[in-house]
Amino acid sequence: MSGVVAVHVGAGSHSSSLKGEYKKLMKEACNQAIAVLLGGGSAVDAVCTATQVLEDSPRTNAGFGSSLTADGRVECDASVMDGRTLRHGAVGAVPGVRNPVLLARQILEAQSQPLPGGLVPPSFLAGSGAQVWAASNNIETCEPAELIAERSQRIHEESLRNIQRLEEGGAKRRRYALPEEEEEMQGGLLDTVGAVCVDSSGYIASAVSSGGLLLKHTGRVGQAAVYGCGCWAENNCDGSGVSIGVSTTGCGEHLIRTMFARLCARAAISPHLGSNIIETVTTHFLESDFLEGVHPRMAGALILRHDPQGAVSDLYWLHTTRTMGVCYMTTNDRKPQAQFSELAEDKIGISVNLQCKSFGAGVPVTTSQELQPGPSRVGLGGLLSGEEEHSKSESSDDDDEPG
Amino acid sequence: MSGVVAVHVGAGSHSSSLKGEYKKLMKEACNQAIAVLLGGGSAVDAVCTATQVLEDSPRTNAGFGSSLTADGRVECDASVMDGRTLRHGAVGAVPGVRNPVLLARQILEAQSQPLPGGLVPPSFLAGSGAQVWAASNNIETCEPAELIAERSQRIHEESLRNIQRLEEGGAKRRRYALPEEEEEMQGGLLDTVGAVCVDSSGYIASAVSSGGLLLKHTGRVGQAAVYGCGCWAENNCDGSGVSIGVSTTGCGEHLIRTMFARLCARAAISPHLGSNIIETVTTHFLESDFLEGVHPRMAGALILRHDPQGAVSDLYWLHTTRTMGVCYMTTNDRKPQAQFSELAEDKIGISVNLQCKSFGAGVPVTTSQELQPGPSRVGLGGLLSGEEEHSKSESSDDDDEPG
Repeated sequence: MSGVVAVHVGAGSHSSSLKGEYKKLMKEACNQAIAVLLGGGSAVDAVCTATQVLEDSPRTNAGFGSSLTADGRVECDASVMDGRTLRHGAVGAVPGVRNPVLLARQILEAQSQPLPGGLVPPSFLAGSGAQVWAASNNIETCEPAELIAERSQRIHEESLRNIQRLEEGGAKRRRYALPEEEEEMQGGLLDTVGAVCVDSSGYIASAVSSGGLLLKHTGRVGQAAVYGCGCWAENNCDGSGVSIGVSTTGCGEHLIRTMFARLCARAAISPHLGSNIIETVTTHFLESDFLEGVHPRMAGALILRHDPQGAVSDLYWLHTTRTMGVCYMTTNDRKPQAQFSELAEDKIGISVNLQCKSFGAGVPVTTSQELQPGPSRVGLGGLLSGEEEHSKSESSDDDDEPG
Repeated sequence: MSGVVAVHVGAGSHSSSLKGEYKKLMKEACNQAIAVLLGGGSAVDAVCTATQVLEDSPRTNAGFGSSLTADGRVECDASVMDGRTLRHGAVGAVPGVRNPVLLARQILEAQSQPLPGGLVPPSFLAGSGAQVWAASNNIETCEPAELIAERSQRIHEESLRNIQRLEEGGAKRRRYALPEEEEEMQGGLLDTVGAVCVDSSGYIASAVSSGGLLLKHTGRVGQAAVYGCGCWAENNCDGSGVSIGVSTTGCGEHLIRTMFARLCARAAISPHLGSNIIETVTTHFLESDFLEGVHPRMAGALILRHDPQGAVSDLYWLHTTRTMGVCYMTTNDRKPQAQFSELAEDKIGISVNLQCKSFGAGVPVTTSQELQPGPSRVGLGGLLSGEEEHSKSESSDDDDEPG
């Protein structure tokens, strides 16, 4: 069978002018991850490599270039899950670590090493303690300020000024947008990154990494660090025989309260062309009692479903935000495919845009579906109609960037 | 209807000589929580008051007197969940906060306050950032060293010496026990505290607080801080009409990987005299693929189930550890009932001891059951036999402490 890698640059509101740059970055992440697989690397190796490429870009809200906390720092969340061992490693609100995903992976791997006296290896480290672990385990650390990109600093300062204007009653905007750079800054709100992969042995893995919400309180931990919420990877998911990997994005607080990664994983066991996923996200996220009073509800997920029986892999991605950027590639492909999906302005936070690509054994891309429910559960009857006026997906074919 | 409060001092291996002291402490926690309810307080008020009493004791592994990290610090995890609003507030690895449960509660409550510009209030804060939040929100902070009890320091030093002996190959003990204080120290391994409550309006709440594993890495976050793992509270649980509150204890890493609090909550919706709970814990904890290679598997839970139809509350507690200490009281009772349940040495980590008390409308205690499965799933046939040779429960009637 062929291995499959997919990455995302978050569900959010990506600036049109930057989409080419995002696509180029995602393609680079996929190319490097596929090279890892072709070199004999595992699914865990591949998702970590892909996520590391995304973290290193100043354009994404992860690692270098993360959104800043209210007091002007970079503090990162990340986690990795291995569907073969079902182990999970996570870091929350960690300062001064260049690639949080590599630290999360190191914490995952260390769980297989017994400690003297029956001591239990940690699965989740937060704050400065996580940085201490990194320093003593050959994970690159740095001065926390070295992770602040010039763009992040600029957005932070403008946002603080805007919040101040709001508090003084001088501004009417509901969100803390910039006059000059509104789109770019909105893109910075939610653009967590992540990856999912099934390798040629059929093992599945996932990763997620995020700088968290702009102007978050220092110490705030989002879904990217929380078990069951940021990523999920489970070979033979819930005993079904099907393997599922998930990487989530959106507003961390919303995703924690709905345990979004595990929710999507279980919904994807029997997706019935995606309608089960849409119904689950509608019922247990868009209409969930756990988010009472929360509007708009912001989520996205990249879901890789591998059925070893038919050697078929299905890639789903969904978002309740305006845009989501994804890219995918198999070990048989010459180049990756990158695209942005869009949801109409009036559906943001109340509807879900679900996209799907299927990969058969040796066949790069066999089918493509575009699924979307109506604005509420009653609209689910129109599930497979596409409702193309409300959603679209730009494939990389429209893109001038090299593959 | 009457309100019900229950507390625990953890699933672990409590020293026989200290049980009287633990019972006295748990009774004080119940008495104070019931006083809160009788004074018109909510279930959230009651669980926080009870947990605060338990944290303040140098005897429990929570707040003052917590187990120390490998580098000799106190760092605490805690969370609170409100079954009415389904909100959850959590702190992880926080230093220098005298009552972590009050900080978790403050984070829970702050989520109902909108922030300017659409900023999202955090639900989870970790490390020094959590202490910063406490200091700016009228939660008492202190020098981190002020939370170190003399006993914790002594156990820490002895444990480090023992680990060193183990590493040098000079000691044979598998666990890092003390020659002089083995029992007391083992008690210190897992004795997380927590509380569950249903108030007279039928609202349910839960709390959990822990200093974490002895000699844990600085920054390590355990289940007490993780959504779905440390505590759960859900009025009308999963739409069943039944309300469930759960507070867990045990090895945090095991409880995170099995999302133990939510697991127990969903199992308790239809408990069938406890057999559903036992089967769920056996299948999804003792035999779970998510804990492959992990032995012994250490968990405990205090589960309060309230059925508003019959105005009946059932309290379950279970543990796979040697002992678990619990105490309960209703608003109709003159005094609380405290007890320790025990599991035979050869069943630790491979079997579950489940206990139950039922409270009818206006009737303090109507029934008592003692349930336990065999050492594996095949033994579940003997579920209701009690197998008294393998489990026992000392009620407070045997106790000389005043009620």
